[in-house]
Amino acid sequence: MTSVADVTSSPRRASTCIPTGGRVSTAPGTSSPVRSTPGTPDGLSRRTFLTRVGIAGGASALYGSMAALGLVATPANAQPVDFRPPRQGDLSPSARKRTKVVILGAGIAGLTAAYELQKAGYECHILEARDRPGGRARTIRGGDSLTDTDGVTQTAEFADGHYFNAGPARIPNHHVTLDYCRELGVEIQALVNANAESFFYHENTGSTDYGPLAGTPVTHRQAKADYYGYISELLLQALDQGALDDTLSADDAERLASFAQSFGGLQGGRYVGNDRRGYTESPGAGHNAGVVDGPPPDLSTVLQSQMGNRFSFEFGFSQAMMMWQPVGGMDRISFAFADAVGKQNITYNAPVTEIRDTADGVTVAYTTGRPGRTRVIQADHCICTIPPMVLRGIPSNLSTETKAALEVPVGVNTGKIGLQYKRRFWEEDSNIFGGITATNMDISGIWYPSYGYLGERGVVVGYYSGAYTDLTVAEREERAVAQGVKIHGPAYRDELETSFSVAWPKVPEALGGWVSWPGGRGDAYDHLLKPDGNVYFAGDHLSHYIAWQAGAIESARMTVMNLHERLAATAE
Amino acid sequence: MTSVADVTSSPRRASTCIPTGGRVSTAPGTSSPVRSTPGTPDGLSRRTFLTRVGIAGGASALYGSMAALGLVATPANAQPVDFRPPRQGDLSPSARKRTKVVILGAGIAGLTAAYELQKAGYECHILEARDRPGGRARTIRGGDSLTDTDGVTQTAEFADGHYFNAGPARIPNHHVTLDYCRELGVEIQALVNANAESFFYHENTGSTDYGPLAGTPVTHRQAKADYYGYISELLLQALDQGALDDTLSADDAERLASFAQSFGGLQGGRYVGNDRRGYTESPGAGHNAGVVDGPPPDLSTVLQSQMGNRFSFEFGFSQAMMMWQPVGGMDRISFAFADAVGKQNITYNAPVTEIRDTADGVTVAYTTGRPGRTRVIQADHCICTIPPMVLRGIPSNLSTETKAALEVPVGVNTGKIGLQYKRRFWEEDSNIFGGITATNMDISGIWYPSYGYLGERGVVVGYYSGAYTDLTVAEREERAVAQGVKIHGPAYRDELETSFSVAWPKVPEALGGWVSWPGGRGDAYDHLLKPDGNVYFAGDHLSHYIAWQAGAIESARMTVMNLHERLAATAE
Repeated sequence: MTSVADVTSSPRRASTCIPTGGRVSTAPGTSSPVRSTPGTPDGLSRRTFLTRVGIAGGASALYGSMAALGLVATPANAQPVDFRPPRQGDLSPSARKRTKVVILGAGIAGLTAAYELQKAGYECHILEARDRPGGRARTIRGGDSLTDTDGVTQTAEFADGHYFNAGPARIPNHHVTLDYCRELGVEIQALVNANAESFFYHENTGSTDYGPLAGTPVTHRQAKADYYGYISELLLQALDQGALDDTLSADDAERLASFAQSFGGLQGGRYVGNDRRGYTESPGAGHNAGVVDGPPPDLSTVLQSQMGNRFSFEFGFSQAMMMWQPVGGMDRISFAFADAVGKQNITYNAPVTEIRDTADGVTVAYTTGRPGRTRVIQADHCICTIPPMVLRGIPSNLSTETKAALEVPVGVNTGKIGLQYKRRFWEEDSNIFGGITATNMDISGIWYPSYGYLGERGVVVGYYSGAYTDLTVAEREERAVAQGVKIHGPAYRDELETSFSVAWPKVPEALGGWVSWPGGRGDAYDHLLKPDGNVYFAGDHLSHYIAWQAGAIESARMTVMNLHERLAATAE
Repeated sequence: MTSVADVTSSPRRASTCIPTGGRVSTAPGTSSPVRSTPGTPDGLSRRTFLTRVGIAGGASALYGSMAALGLVATPANAQPVDFRPPRQGDLSPSARKRTKVVILGAGIAGLTAAYELQKAGYECHILEARDRPGGRARTIRGGDSLTDTDGVTQTAEFADGHYFNAGPARIPNHHVTLDYCRELGVEIQALVNANAESFFYHENTGSTDYGPLAGTPVTHRQAKADYYGYISELLLQALDQGALDDTLSADDAERLASFAQSFGGLQGGRYVGNDRRGYTESPGAGHNAGVVDGPPPDLSTVLQSQMGNRFSFEFGFSQAMMMWQPVGGMDRISFAFADAVGKQNITYNAPVTEIRDTADGVTVAYTTGRPGRTRVIQADHCICTIPPMVLRGIPSNLSTETKAALEVPVGVNTGKIGLQYKRRFWEEDSNIFGGITATNMDISGIWYPSYGYLGERGVVVGYYSGAYTDLTVAEREERAVAQGVKIHGPAYRDELETSFSVAWPKVPEALGGWVSWPGGRGDAYDHLLKPDGNVYFAGDHLSHYIAWQAGAIESARMTVMNLHERLAATAE
């Protein structure tokens, strides 16, 4: 979280992660005034100006203007750089002779780099160890196989049209990823990241007693109604006792009381439950007014449950609804990128065996389908998007500093299991259409599919956790199901058809779900932002969106700019 | 809102608005124990039993069991009746001779009645004044025409694939409507009813000053971050001052403090803004950590804005996300019903001109396409779903009590306008993908389309309000656009292509968006729940889900049961 002390604002909204078309998205009407007039426009008082900007652009534009007007300080940690996509004609005739780029990895970073460089006429070729594009942005469907580093092979038996996203699964409103979906024509649909009908489930641990609600699934709907009801009642109580008189004017106290009444759904200042909790008998026809689900647990029971400490997840910058996914699986983005880059420019099943930076370029060796059969590709530049945990195992003549830097990041232990059920009991029995049940069990949560609603079967993600990595494939399913039964009852075991689990540390091309930088982004991180000779690095691990496709895209775009501008500058 | 005083519980969850298959949906594992053992099962302490039920079925099942165990009082106002769908073989040979039913209106109520009666072999025929099924569940597409009671005709010019739902537009997770979507094979998609990126917008009125944020669009994201931050800070302040010591144990006080820290995103107990507010510069690659949007307005400014009083909308029983809509428009449900009922069993363009209850049945006169050309249909029974405001204008020999009852309900004044834009600026400029901007202006809100994301154009609902009914078609567009410009800037006017507005009080077949019952559901409501001779009544106005398709369905199902069971009983 960034504190106000180091917060500033720029004329541009977050939405100016701009698409490659070069269009700058801004709050309507704010871009030009703020950009062209750092001071207050003639004939407008500062307040009037800010008000007008506010009217046109909303609060963020207003604060953006405040920053432009020097009303807010500028932080040291922000180095915003707009993407300047390479264009035809940027390069001199001599520079145009040095535009052959080999890109290592057909994940989102590698694909973005090739896609953007091609726009300026670069000759890009991608080497990919896997048999398909996307890297960790992997969608598992029936027929897909994975062989772990321990030699264990799984083949998915999901029914046609059913799948789960083993890697990234959500796209926030504000990520550049959506701009590429727009540009590449990838259709999106809602990814249900929050649903009033899904559950919170806390079971007691050796260290924590969650009280009477321990071991009881409680709907988000009820947990919110109860927490919001009681804290609103407590706010009124504090007001009555004058505890807030120093902070609030009489008018503000009245406004807070009115907010509390509304926010808590109180009756006469007390929380006694309300229909936000849902009904045990729905309202219906005639005289059926319905039966509200209640009474609510008492205040102490609600607080002991600690379920409210999970609410803020839904307000997070990157987790707040709405969220999105491509129709048909996350890998639709990678395949759309690959189509745009061109089949002839990507070699699959081609793991890299050596990287040599040379005086005038790069030489990369890779194996082809047949064992021991090695080929070499030469290029003027290389963009390497291979995860550091894998890259450090590949022979190269990269500098000792680079090799040392590659040793620093740690592969994060995480994984998912997809459980295919023959009946969508979460929909039919519990009215849960998409969404996530959050729990303190080691599954961390249960993801209900955000597609195929009302259908016959569905694939649930039964855990998102590193706790299952060292279990056998059979043990993973058994344990995940045993946890889910506590929440959904016997159906969670009885209706299971098949499953498929991914343990990212055991995936040879990844060796981790994403990276962590021990002690934060330090010298090693800084070092890898710079090219080593003719070898550039890119990937979500070199961004502030680690584990997001947007991080891979932003990093690739920065690397593309660095390479392109260096070439444009140096070549004479 | 129902107070605990009159709240009870039943063994069944709200999800037991059961589909017509007769399956009873219950929380897994709870149905039989609760139903079969009103007392505590042998060998289980009450607490253990409740815990087990809780484990299997969640909080609502737990309270359901408490009710079954007599731990909660039973209310007078709830008369839950499960739908018992008519079945082949229910009727005696003599009863089977009296199964011809004429149904007036091919809206959701009429279609449901025909669909369910046909399952038991009834011979149903529907008369519909309009040229299509669905009634008020109307989707407006290019080429659609409406002629108002004042003679004004509009023809929609929306582009192919673009539309808006002029009537019902949202389906909650728990409505029986989804069960029919499942049974009829109607594909659904998310209806975005809440979106962190959409705005709140309050402008000052003669009576209310909203303070510095008046006239400024504020994202839901920021309004929540600021309200939740400050009220959490106030809760901690109250705790520090011991104002809650009488209410909270030391442990509970600690738990509340921990909740407040998390819920408010506080730093050292203070709210100073945080990244939940969003960024003016998104985090990106390399050293771009992003720039959090801030600083937040002060506490008094936030309270003056009164935006927090709108939060509870999102927690409402019928409005909480997730919500749903059929892919392709709400009328996909009505057309699916109509297909199931059968073309040959529905006569369109057939407004009813007279209803006569007779000794052994019903005679209904209606006009056909050609003016003055009248036809008569005879049946054993009639189910009339014509809205009371229209029905009371149709000659009939219904009883004076019935005619008096039909005079009571008042048609509600409401309407919508669909504004087609050539660019989805709300998505491209503001990262708003679906959702609703809420305002105190007379448009009440702006609905962004929940389909066609990332596309070229889109249809926004520019108002949902009765304030535009008496304006001309041109004035409606002009006024709606002028309001929207205050929120979205010039694009809201400049990118407009075409519009279409519906004023429900002026739609001849509706004469209102829905009904209100002055003084509540009284004698008139009670009277219309009973048949008048062989004429039965149905519609959402005879339910506790007025203005929802679920109300029409529930009412139709109740009427079907009444008719069917009366016939089964009387015919010998």
